[in-house]
Amino acid sequence: MLMDSGYPKSFASDNHSGVHPAVLAAVTAANVGDASAYGDDDWTRAFEEHVRETFGEHALGFAVLNGSGANMLALEPTLRRRFDAIICPETAHIVTGEAGATERLLGAKLITVPTPDGKLRPEDIKARLHTPGDFNFPPPRVVSISQVTELGTCYTPGEVAALAETAHAHGLLLHMDGARLANAGAYLGCPLRAFTTDAGVDVLSFGGTKNGALAAEAVIMLTPSLAADFPILRRQSLQLASKMRFISAQLSALLTDDLWRTNAAHANAMALRLAEGVRDLPGLTIEYPVESNAVFAALPEQAITTLRQKYAFHVWDHTTGVVRWMTAFDTTPEHVDDFIADIHKALLP
Amino acid sequence: MLMDSGYPKSFASDNHSGVHPAVLAAVTAANVGDASAYGDDDWTRAFEEHVRETFGEHALGFAVLNGSGANMLALEPTLRRRFDAIICPETAHIVTGEAGATERLLGAKLITVPTPDGKLRPEDIKARLHTPGDFNFPPPRVVSISQVTELGTCYTPGEVAALAETAHAHGLLLHMDGARLANAGAYLGCPLRAFTTDAGVDVLSFGGTKNGALAAEAVIMLTPSLAADFPILRRQSLQLASKMRFISAQLSALLTDDLWRTNAAHANAMALRLAEGVRDLPGLTIEYPVESNAVFAALPEQAITTLRQKYAFHVWDHTTGVVRWMTAFDTTPEHVDDFIADIHKALLP
Amino acid sequence: MLMDSGYPKSFASDNHSGVHPAVLAAVTAANVGDASAYGDDDWTRAFEEHVRETFGEHALGFAVLNGSGANMLALEPTLRRRFDAIICPETAHIVTGEAGATERLLGAKLITVPTPDGKLRPEDIKARLHTPGDFNFPPPRVVSISQVTELGTCYTPGEVAALAETAHAHGLLLHMDGARLANAGAYLGCPLRAFTTDAGVDVLSFGGTKNGALAAEAVIMLTPSLAADFPILRRQSLQLASKMRFISAQLSALLTDDLWRTNAAHANAMALRLAEGVRDLPGLTIEYPVESNAVFAALPEQAITTLRQKYAFHVWDHTTGVVRWMTAFDTTPEHVDDFIADIHKALLP
Amino acid sequence: MLMDSGYPKSFASDNHSGVHPAVLAAVTAANVGDASAYGDDDWTRAFEEHVRETFGEHALGFAVLNGSGANMLALEPTLRRRFDAIICPETAHIVTGEAGATERLLGAKLITVPTPDGKLRPEDIKARLHTPGDFNFPPPRVVSISQVTELGTCYTPGEVAALAETAHAHGLLLHMDGARLANAGAYLGCPLRAFTTDAGVDVLSFGGTKNGALAAEAVIMLTPSLAADFPILRRQSLQLASKMRFISAQLSALLTDDLWRTNAAHANAMALRLAEGVRDLPGLTIEYPVESNAVFAALPEQAITTLRQKYAFHVWDHTTGVVRWMTAFDTTPEHVDDFIADIHKALLP
Repeated sequence: MLMDSGYPKSFASDNHSGVHPAVLAAVTAANVGDASAYGDDDWTRAFEEHVRETFGEHALGFAVLNGSGANMLALEPTLRRRFDAIICPETAHIVTGEAGATERLLGAKLITVPTPDGKLRPEDIKARLHTPGDFNFPPPRVVSISQVTELGTCYTPGEVAALAETAHAHGLLLHMDGARLANAGAYLGCPLRAFTTDAGVDVLSFGGTKNGALAAEAVIMLTPSLAADFPILRRQSLQLASKMRFISAQLSALLTDDLWRTNAAHANAMALRLAEGVRDLPGLTIEYPVESNAVFAALPEQAITTLRQKYAFHVWDHTTGVVRWMTAFDTTPEHVDDFIADIHKALLP
Repeated sequence: MLMDSGYPKSFASDNHSGVHPAVLAAVTAANVGDASAYGDDDWTRAFEEHVRETFGEHALGFAVLNGSGANMLALEPTLRRRFDAIICPETAHIVTGEAGATERLLGAKLITVPTPDGKLRPEDIKARLHTPGDFNFPPPRVVSISQVTELGTCYTPGEVAALAETAHAHGLLLHMDGARLANAGAYLGCPLRAFTTDAGVDVLSFGGTKNGALAAEAVIMLTPSLAADFPILRRQSLQLASKMRFISAQLSALLTDDLWRTNAAHANAMALRLAEGVRDLPGLTIEYPVESNAVFAALPEQAITTLRQKYAFHVWDHTTGVVRWMTAFDTTPEHVDDFIADIHKALLP
Repeated sequence: MLMDSGYPKSFASDNHSGVHPAVLAAVTAANVGDASAYGDDDWTRAFEEHVRETFGEHALGFAVLNGSGANMLALEPTLRRRFDAIICPETAHIVTGEAGATERLLGAKLITVPTPDGKLRPEDIKARLHTPGDFNFPPPRVVSISQVTELGTCYTPGEVAALAETAHAHGLLLHMDGARLANAGAYLGCPLRAFTTDAGVDVLSFGGTKNGALAAEAVIMLTPSLAADFPILRRQSLQLASKMRFISAQLSALLTDDLWRTNAAHANAMALRLAEGVRDLPGLTIEYPVESNAVFAALPEQAITTLRQKYAFHVWDHTTGVVRWMTAFDTTPEHVDDFIADIHKALLP
Repeated sequence: MLMDSGYPKSFASDNHSGVHPAVLAAVTAANVGDASAYGDDDWTRAFEEHVRETFGEHALGFAVLNGSGANMLALEPTLRRRFDAIICPETAHIVTGEAGATERLLGAKLITVPTPDGKLRPEDIKARLHTPGDFNFPPPRVVSISQVTELGTCYTPGEVAALAETAHAHGLLLHMDGARLANAGAYLGCPLRAFTTDAGVDVLSFGGTKNGALAAEAVIMLTPSLAADFPILRRQSLQLASKMRFISAQLSALLTDDLWRTNAAHANAMALRLAEGVRDLPGLTIEYPVESNAVFAALPEQAITTLRQKYAFHVWDHTTGVVRWMTAFDTTPEHVDDFIADIHKALLP
């Protein structure tokens, strides 16, 4: 992939952006004197309070260092027995994007489900339940969904609730990989708790980095009993920051005055602007509903090659010519319009 | 332990300090426009060049997120077979301080050696070599030492070289946990490579956080073949930052103009000032040579209790009344002198 | 499932049978005086010689305790790096039948391939090769196929050779799960080495138990370098018998005078007799070519229920009404004919 | 070590012996017709009943394939959280004899305790309890002791009860590695339940192989809730025999008419005869009380060398000249007396 610091704006990933100024200001403001290490500090207590305000009074927030760490540490407490398996879409980041961490670190089988749009349905769970008495195939213990999905789509609160209901009815827990939770909240136009706490999610990976943080993610336990062992697990899983205040301060900045929503809504709007600007072009197809800051488009290989000479973006599937264009909190309308103009040129003779 | 942000200065750990201004300035300076994620950026390339300048042209530096992550990722490539064991002092951080990560993540047996001062000797290795043909006890494959040790002592370059020679003569590798490598360099008054690269160390955990970074450590491969699989291992082991430039910028700041040495030398001087100020007090014994930024002292329980009402520090061993006092880059002579005065008061009637 | 000791013969699994008399005689004959433990004995040396005679002079045989153990210990040496993945059919026993051992014990991702008949094709490998530089998805390192497959089908020697060639051309190894290798050898009518050693298989799980042993399987290294660490791995993986002579003696009995072939050919003939006896029945479909000792048939649920009141067999897929009928070395023509008669009754009005 | 099948009798290990005739007869008797696989058979039900008769009505017995497997599967259910540690003597077989399986398969830290005689004391547990709130060192969750110990000594029922009481008072469980439990029962002259069930042991590894079986061990859950997940764990841990009846039949044979005691008492008597026959020899020291079928003796290197030219036995510690002599169910007084005579010759000028 291209390396492009500076202009033109990267459409490769929302993690190509820098740090939102308010987040960096919060880090700088935390740099005063001593603070106890490992989270026994005022900034971490403030972050924990933000979590309760956002996700409900029983929600327990724990800052971690990156998204893979958040996912592993969110899933780990749900897998109480050493053979518990995970049901998830085959597009899930824990399947495709974490270099086998789920298998290696958790030792867990991933029961992967093909989906048309990255979204699991209740019947997908029902079809993969454990047969009582079977000792050959490991029983699923948790269902893991991504919100926003890896294909840029969102579950409605009702869809999440239906999954939670099905999972719970069969003794399973529901995990949500929210690396882009803010974008889902902005798209759905509702409080984050509407499709997490209130929809029955048990444990949540909450992403800060793609939303404007330097490096800050969180595990949020909505079923508090899952948090019992977290401090030791976080240490053992290499996700404990010693100078924790600086991680907590980033998360608090995003949760203050709904900065997360402002950032995400802007990124989403830029994606929609991009999609609308190219949707009617001959030879280009928008693959999935644009419900976040991602646009998946199929276009001819020649156009892809031409565009990638100037712009950074991922080819999602070489066999089908599908590319992924991501926007971020700092993508401007001008960035998008320039890109649209170049896509037009690449596609039109 | 006490939580003490502000005055009096914490003597509990060098990770109670904040971020050195030059490091924070480097982070802020890196916040310009886009950069490719995961290390394909100019700041990371600059860090890699600093590593080569510091540790030799063949040295390969990889930024990670915390000290436990550095240790696990430094050791992992040395353990080529799934039963390879690690020889280390029983005081090693990988034994006592990482919540069982070595056993859980690496699956490796720790062959622990009692030592008088935290330092391993060549004969300790020789006494624990594998018996050819033995399939009952896992063979050691790597020797892990800490420089500075967990007891504040330092290996001389010659001592490291003797360990490396013994290890290599028996087909073992040598890992150095350098969470406080800078303090050793400052104490020994020599280049870092004198007791790492030039002494035969194969792989190094290099600490930035305790030296003044926000959150930045590194694995440095001095035997380059160990680096072959690092990118996937780092991803799988939850130690890959997406916005890597901000981690790399911190490490580069410390490696620029020997800031690491300035910071460490100051912290070491403060520890020595503290030790000298209390060494002759009746009822107090300095336990180990003060060769870094740690002072281990034995004193009466009553005095410990009195001092901990005002100061944050760790009781190292409750049964022997040994405490650990750490200084940092931002500990001032006034901090130390006030503490000395209070220790005098606590001990003298 | 039914528990049926005695008449009528079980068609549930070839492991419902007892021990072949010649195998039990060999165990009894080995019970003379002392022998060194863990394989340093004459019976084990004889087994190793049988392996060389059967699979070629460079083949190295290691006795283990069960089929899951054989598979894990055959795969383990192929996975040299802690993130290496396995390509296999989604029907593979290592996917569906070992309670998640592959993920838990090896930490390896299973890259599963849908197949029409349980058999992998070279293009399945080619479509799942690692993208150089990708650190998100673990690279495959070994291809695992079953011979006989879990659907009762067999690879020809040429088909195995084509898979080995494709695997090796891309730096992958080829593992064969031969829990029913004998049945494949009998079906193909050729020496075992024709579709293992000579076809380029690197490592083999060789099944004894289903062929008439009490409890004896083997890992056979056809690429000898894979065996370097086997003794410690076998101990660590809980597959080392102390009184090894009694395991080795069983395997030698099967490899003496081609008893394995006699047993397997008989079981295969009984399966064919069964299939031919019911093939033309209305409402019943034979699902796969009958190339071993398994018959997969689809029949109405009512007929399944009726038959299971008298006979033990597995329902393979409840949604499609497919059942699996297995024969064994001790299934008689009378057993089969009685079963055929009852199937006729259950299906015909 | 020497390989010696035949005369003179091996004193290297009780697993150099063959199978007791009654055990082999039971295996042969089980070879009648079909039986369901994986333990759903009459022989396994009979074994489970023997376990209840021997260890109490709530005891749950599960047959496994070898001693390492029994230990791992006994410990596994006690470690409910992925960081739980094990307290045990540093001589424990799980530390020294299982090729790192505890670390690799269970991921558990072994907190090892030096002991004078292989026996743990209650104060050893108390000194290693978890400090509440500590997230750096993994908390112990189970205490593991061996009965007979690896040094041939036995705990009295009262000593076991004191350990169980201490463990339980601090929320820990008690595991007993009973690879030679029969020898302890014979030495103590009491029912097996007196120092297991009745003394508060939670889970037990019960050895059959060294007592005269071909290959048969068991995990016995005395706290039944620990058994909840056993069937899947046994499958996943490679310890499930398909033709289980033949494993169960061996264990039942040993538990019938106290054959275990007859065998063990004889072996113990032979060890005592050996110890008494050499105890007063100049230059030879019996190292530990002879409380089972092992004699540990220190003697001059020259004598060791001479004796090993004719006899198979282990040198336990090359630095101290301590050897281990084991007897078995089939060691005769003549075997012992011949050995005694040769020891005399080797030591006396």
